[in-house]
Amino acid sequence: MKGFSFELRKQDGSARLGRITTPHGEVTTPVFMPVGTKASVKGLTPEELEAMGVEIVLANTYHLYLRPGHNLVKELGGLHGFMNWRRPILTDSGGFQVFSLCKLRKITEEGVQFSSHLDGTRYTLTPESAIEVQEALGADIIMPLDECTPYPADREYAKDSMDLTHRWAKRCREAKQPNGQALFGIVQGGMYADLRRESAETLVAMGFDGYSIGGLSVGEEKGLMKEMVAATVERLPKDKPRYLMGVGTPEDLVFAVEMGIDMFDCVMPTRNARNGTLFTRHGKLVIKNAQYERDPRPIEENCGCYTCTRYSRAYLRHLFMAGEILAPRLNTIHNLFYYTSLMKSMRQAIEEGALAEFKKRFHEARSPSELTAAL
Amino acid sequence: MKGFSFELRKQDGSARLGRITTPHGEVTTPVFMPVGTKASVKGLTPEELEAMGVEIVLANTYHLYLRPGHNLVKELGGLHGFMNWRRPILTDSGGFQVFSLCKLRKITEEGVQFSSHLDGTRYTLTPESAIEVQEALGADIIMPLDECTPYPADREYAKDSMDLTHRWAKRCREAKQPNGQALFGIVQGGMYADLRRESAETLVAMGFDGYSIGGLSVGEEKGLMKEMVAATVERLPKDKPRYLMGVGTPEDLVFAVEMGIDMFDCVMPTRNARNGTLFTRHGKLVIKNAQYERDPRPIEENCGCYTCTRYSRAYLRHLFMAGEILAPRLNTIHNLFYYTSLMKSMRQAIEEGALAEFKKRFHEARSPSELTAAL
Repeated sequence: MKGFSFELRKQDGSARLGRITTPHGEVTTPVFMPVGTKASVKGLTPEELEAMGVEIVLANTYHLYLRPGHNLVKELGGLHGFMNWRRPILTDSGGFQVFSLCKLRKITEEGVQFSSHLDGTRYTLTPESAIEVQEALGADIIMPLDECTPYPADREYAKDSMDLTHRWAKRCREAKQPNGQALFGIVQGGMYADLRRESAETLVAMGFDGYSIGGLSVGEEKGLMKEMVAATVERLPKDKPRYLMGVGTPEDLVFAVEMGIDMFDCVMPTRNARNGTLFTRHGKLVIKNAQYERDPRPIEENCGCYTCTRYSRAYLRHLFMAGEILAPRLNTIHNLFYYTSLMKSMRQAIEEGALAEFKKRFHEARSPSELTAAL
Repeated sequence: MKGFSFELRKQDGSARLGRITTPHGEVTTPVFMPVGTKASVKGLTPEELEAMGVEIVLANTYHLYLRPGHNLVKELGGLHGFMNWRRPILTDSGGFQVFSLCKLRKITEEGVQFSSHLDGTRYTLTPESAIEVQEALGADIIMPLDECTPYPADREYAKDSMDLTHRWAKRCREAKQPNGQALFGIVQGGMYADLRRESAETLVAMGFDGYSIGGLSVGEEKGLMKEMVAATVERLPKDKPRYLMGVGTPEDLVFAVEMGIDMFDCVMPTRNARNGTLFTRHGKLVIKNAQYERDPRPIEENCGCYTCTRYSRAYLRHLFMAGEILAPRLNTIHNLFYYTSLMKSMRQAIEEGALAEFKKRFHEARSPSELTAAL
């Protein structure tokens, strides 16, 4: 089995153009990873994802651990075979979902006990079992168990939480088999820049295949998020990929790429699509609005996605209002195409040393006058 | 605009191989028409339907009349442009839905008044307005307003209902514009063979582009359905297509093709797919059953559909149990592939004069021993 590597190909300011190699192929960075929580990017086939240029997807360990169970997935060929996605996959550790979805959770040094959000069954996830589960799932890139520090948290809580995450990271590293899967470290530290720096340094000293930034986009102001990203990035090595977990809006992707982030994931394009909120270069379009009832235009003029090249806003609005299941599918295709195209444009801009110019155009297109005319 | 025609190419007993030509292309018969109630075959794109060999789809006038409205559809290019399906389309008249979905309906000589099942709004559909709505929708084949005689109904009710349907059929014929759309007559007559014969004769005397058989598969025994089909078919001309409305199971399609029916529509393959009931040549497979939890086999061995060539029963069961919206889509692809393949096999058998042999194999595959081994 081929292993994992990262090649930094070019820089434009702090922004980076890179290439990740995994046992299931290459990923060009910066990259956005669509979320396939339960081994399915909701409504879409692998072929549709490939057609829009998706190179890597994320699946959620927590959900798959509960249902159908990691051993079943392993029996059916691991995630790649199970969901028939032959390109790279990243799994999270399940930690974030335990903290966001589960009641009755109890954190100890050993790990975290929680009740399933499905039926209340009691489970325990430890650093070792989180790795075992992810080894059974067989993703190319896996995450250590961490505590996603709540927001707001006082400095003492954030520090203790971060230290626990570090001890768990060490145990994950020790538990992991030498099987070609890459293990990232997850930087925590709440909203304290010095803790973020300390966390990055501690994890880098342990040595991981890449570094994730966790605990952001949890309700804090954008300025604070940027400050934490900056504090973290300055202590991360250049030769390893950097993954900003759970982020974000198109605006977030633009500033984070500029700051040197390589990887992103977020449910926003897929979840918003199902709710009828569509991304365009001019801003968001809410398809159920009456103004689109007889609108023959595509979601976005000149968009090359399957949906925009074939269907009118009027038809998409009809499907949405009528509760037709083709609606979430067509909307998801558009939103993911928008996200992958945005990343592609940024990669090209970095290649040309023109990211600042790109960013200027990106924000101009979202001006109030452009928005009113287009949507 | 090219008009409508039917060519009877071959017979095998009473079974017929034919070709319908419409302004949007040809349809080989016998044919099964997937139902796209609200201008969408639930979950699928036109490309997916074409890939499995679907040549014609049905849309429901009642639903589209209420939402988004026929004039809106007309503005957006008619049904073909609206839903981006460039092949033939058939619309029903809305009559059946008024009788099955609406409360507070009132039938008069003029037409039928009803309350929308969506919001209770009061509407009237007359023979003339049913044609007007269908002309705006722009399907290739349209239906006259009829009363779907309830089951059971006494002879007097069935006779009066049939006579009303005939008077409405005449008004529809007179209201219709010479625009290339084909108008069928709908045979009614309840479960009375003599009324069925009378209905067929009356409509044939008026002269329509094809003949539909309505009011069957409404709860009656199979024997009674066959008797009514037989009584009707014996009075229909050979040179016009025959459409058995709302039928049916795979078994129904086999006996009805044998009796000389050319066209079918039914929600069964699509609705069952969404409920997790899958058709195979050995019988029905209920994907949620625990026995499929770790089953690595496709739904049906040697099935060439997109779903069977890529996914295991275990994965499909997982998607279904997890409520993933990919589940209805993959299941629908399989079920419609099964239906279209069944029709294709029957067309081939008729071509070879081997329908009796086909029917024998069809029923053998559904024997208890085959079923247990395969499912």
